Amino acid sequence: MLGLMQSQNLSIASLIDFAEKHHGDTEIISRRVEGDIHRSDWATIAKRSRQVANALDAGQVAQGARVATLAWNGYRHLEIYFGVSGSGRVLHTLNPRLHPEQVTWIVNHAEDHVMCFDMTFLPIIQNIHAHCPTVKHWVALCDADKLPADSGIPGLISYEAWMGSHANVYAWPELDENTASCMCYTSGTTGNPKAALYSHRSTILHAYACALPDVMGLSARDSVLPVVPMFHVNAWGIPYSAAMVGCKLVFPGAALDGKSVYELLETEQVTLAAGVPTVWQMLLGHLKAGGLRFSHLKRTVIGGSACPPAMIHAFNDDYGVEVLHAWGMTELSPLGTLCTLKNKHLALPAEDQMKIRLKQGRAIYGIDFKIVDDQGKEQPHDGKAYGDLLVKGPWVVREYYKQEGGSPLIDGWFPTGDVATVDPEGFMQITDRSKDVIKSGGEWISSIDVENIAMAHPEVAMAACIGMAHPKWDERPIVVVVKRPGSPLERDTLLKFYEGKIAKWQIPDDVVFVDAIPLGATGKMLKTRLREQLASYQLPA
Amino acid sequence: MLGLMQSQNLSIASLIDFAEKHHGDTEIISRRVEGDIHRSDWATIAKRSRQVANALDAGQVAQGARVATLAWNGYRHLEIYFGVSGSGRVLHTLNPRLHPEQVTWIVNHAEDHVMCFDMTFLPIIQNIHAHCPTVKHWVALCDADKLPADSGIPGLISYEAWMGSHANVYAWPELDENTASCMCYTSGTTGNPKAALYSHRSTILHAYACALPDVMGLSARDSVLPVVPMFHVNAWGIPYSAAMVGCKLVFPGAALDGKSVYELLETEQVTLAAGVPTVWQMLLGHLKAGGLRFSHLKRTVIGGSACPPAMIHAFNDDYGVEVLHAWGMTELSPLGTLCTLKNKHLALPAEDQMKIRLKQGRAIYGIDFKIVDDQGKEQPHDGKAYGDLLVKGPWVVREYYKQEGGSPLIDGWFPTGDVATVDPEGFMQITDRSKDVIKSGGEWISSIDVENIAMAHPEVAMAACIGMAHPKWDERPIVVVVKRPGSPLERDTLLKFYEGKIAKWQIPDDVVFVDAIPLGATGKMLKTRLREQLASYQLPA
Repeated sequence: MLGLMQSQNLSIASLIDFAEKHHGDTEIISRRVEGDIHRSDWATIAKRSRQVANALDAGQVAQGARVATLAWNGYRHLEIYFGVSGSGRVLHTLNPRLHPEQVTWIVNHAEDHVMCFDMTFLPIIQNIHAHCPTVKHWVALCDADKLPADSGIPGLISYEAWMGSHANVYAWPELDENTASCMCYTSGTTGNPKAALYSHRSTILHAYACALPDVMGLSARDSVLPVVPMFHVNAWGIPYSAAMVGCKLVFPGAALDGKSVYELLETEQVTLAAGVPTVWQMLLGHLKAGGLRFSHLKRTVIGGSACPPAMIHAFNDDYGVEVLHAWGMTELSPLGTLCTLKNKHLALPAEDQMKIRLKQGRAIYGIDFKIVDDQGKEQPHDGKAYGDLLVKGPWVVREYYKQEGGSPLIDGWFPTGDVATVDPEGFMQITDRSKDVIKSGGEWISSIDVENIAMAHPEVAMAACIGMAHPKWDERPIVVVVKRPGSPLERDTLLKFYEGKIAKWQIPDDVVFVDAIPLGATGKMLKTRLREQLASYQLPA
Repeated sequence: MLGLMQSQNLSIASLIDFAEKHHGDTEIISRRVEGDIHRSDWATIAKRSRQVANALDAGQVAQGARVATLAWNGYRHLEIYFGVSGSGRVLHTLNPRLHPEQVTWIVNHAEDHVMCFDMTFLPIIQNIHAHCPTVKHWVALCDADKLPADSGIPGLISYEAWMGSHANVYAWPELDENTASCMCYTSGTTGNPKAALYSHRSTILHAYACALPDVMGLSARDSVLPVVPMFHVNAWGIPYSAAMVGCKLVFPGAALDGKSVYELLETEQVTLAAGVPTVWQMLLGHLKAGGLRFSHLKRTVIGGSACPPAMIHAFNDDYGVEVLHAWGMTELSPLGTLCTLKNKHLALPAEDQMKIRLKQGRAIYGIDFKIVDDQGKEQPHDGKAYGDLLVKGPWVVREYYKQEGGSPLIDGWFPTGDVATVDPEGFMQITDRSKDVIKSGGEWISSIDVENIAMAHPEVAMAACIGMAHPKWDERPIVVVVKRPGSPLERDTLLKFYEGKIAKWQIPDDVVFVDAIPLGATGKMLKTRLREQLASYQLPA
């Protein structure tokens, strides 16, 4: 027997309709590429998003066609978010930090029909446009009078000219809620980039979950500054959750330095900010240097990579700002877990609370996770056993766009590529990447644990732990080290340093000193490259 | 083009699975009918809900069959909630306050297959069981040794004997998310009772919305006491939202007096309580009499009927408890609006904030509403114009069970039967019931406004305003008044009292003094009856 409730498709258009109707004059603030501060509101964003939809209709952009953006966080990007998905096209946010060749590859793979870009990225577009035959409309996110006459890009039009002449009335189409709304490419270390293709349904369910008190806790009383880019998994879904609750949004544009971000946090009375650790490092540095305080900031969501304990301490102890440590990935829309305390933890001493806050957090309802060993056997939630982290849920990918990479699921579960422990309270902690964990005699050794100990030695500048094939134990760890300039550090001294800090069988078999460890564009160590460099290395007998 | 996210049915079973896995030892406390305090937790509730599912299988209760409850708020009721809906049956919560004849009618209309009842309600069951041929299993919510030997109910079994012998392992079926999960009858003033038939989908979406910071703001740090009965629109959805966030639940059982509720609020460190104004009246009375304070209570959700200003003041000013004024109805699962302030209101003086808090609140994302005049024309959101309140959304009924009463929708909108204003900030205020509003010369007069002025006169004990047919103006208001004992109050004195308090054309044409105004079982004035009594009344010329 079926229920008798109204059948209504979950839709992104309904988010912007809601924000317009119930929070029309709530502000949307943007620092523009031009440097000035632009003030808008939900009603204006809604009207202009409908102008975008009309412009797409006029440009004969079909339902389901991809509309790409190469843009910072700002009001025009937000209008495109709702205008594109709301009208049944697919928003494709491109990462401008990729190499132009990768951008070209992705644009062609996605078959983007429209490209909207900030003027900052004009050089990239000039570089690639001739190699992107599917793109029919090039739109520069600027006023008509800011358009360069000699861009060399055929038919280039300013955003304001492109959408400005169209009506701000538009009847959003009634879409199946499983219609694709958005795509994000993720660049693995191997193989071609692969795209997650989100739906209206997955986006709305994720938006509800994101706003919950145990997650970001978003309300109409918040002023939210997403430092996390709108080209990075939709700024963790904040634009959607923000429309759902009608909060104020503050966009930092291209200025992510400590001074600029601090200025916006203060003048726009921001209560919650979200971003990766590196941005917060710059912000905290700026505060410390100037002896500054936050007037309104209450919470920061920190994710993208593990948050250093010192940062959590600084926010919490020095500035009274609660850190919400989060974990997610492109394939999860992106939120998987977030670290908020349970009732029973509120009475714990601050240092015990801090131990919990260092973990990546608890599952959000909608996401289910488990940790499994090599044989797929589920591991206990005892905070010690670790295994590959698998997830499932309505905002987790089933497969990638164009079935790139085949079917990623294992019995319906998505393997995250992370290795984690889960404690009895359900708090998950990432301990390693699956490809980096060392499997020695049936037991797993966390490469990150081994690296952290080496990094704690005063004479070590950088350390990478990798597994080396071993006839008896399958793999044994070695640690590759860059010494501080002029340091006389020796192999045996460092190995001795491990004693008592880690189980004996987890201590690396060897230390290899090198001048440099190869790093990727985002500063992450490239262990694949390192393994290639050590191809001829032999473990000590 | 469709998205490529995992397809997963929204399901009530997944709520209890989640609470068990991630909040297994979070407590579920119940004051039992026996008077003692019972302590359980989410893991135990989950196990026992699976025993319930197995008992239903063993009893050959088909998928979709209705399982009725006649029960207070308590752990067994909660187990039945999840065991019944999770296994694909339909939970039917009966209101024990109805007349036994009505209960019988409803049981037969619903074709209930199982009846689970608290021992408090044994007399009702003894009264009706012979007239309920569809019921195959009578289950008393008690231990085996508490079962009366001579109940007269054939096959009567205790809950513990019924479910206790079954395994606590059960594979929840994979259900279409539109499968019926739950039904609640609503008794209109005319016609037969009609049932809303909720689905797994509507329940989960409602649960997400309920938990949002702008609604109940539920988190794993809360201890929640629903005074609102689980037989009254599923205790406003709290059992589902509670499982979703893993908060502690505290059930008051049958003891709703001020002393008992206060005791639980204190001993179980309750942070949020929810109920109707009459219950809070008793609680506040108890506090005042004893000079008591709340140690942990932070928020109360008040709905069911308009919350008197004095109550909001008392909670807020005297006890520092935030009142969340809510509006909803059975047909809305039930939440429609809830009153939380926007960012811009936080800086207002307390008295201006209070003016907002008196309203029923803002729409929750998922619910859309509008106010329309007689011709269906949408009225402005200016805080003055009022009209019939229409709503739509994924947790609003489309039609009633067995199509009772035909199709209730008007162009896809559900007419609530309430008349309301909406201010420019989107805050809705109920001003009247549609059937009570007086339509005079194309303008509407709120019967409640007219009554409130009369009630403010020191010599008036009770007042009801009703519309009388008028040849020129269609309708004109009169006010029917019960004087305080011995009062010499006269017609013209009272009419004069209206001057300056209301527009001239809204002043009633006449005053009719009566000895008593007919009241319904819940204390509400029965205006239909009053109109019948005044059938021969003539307006003054």
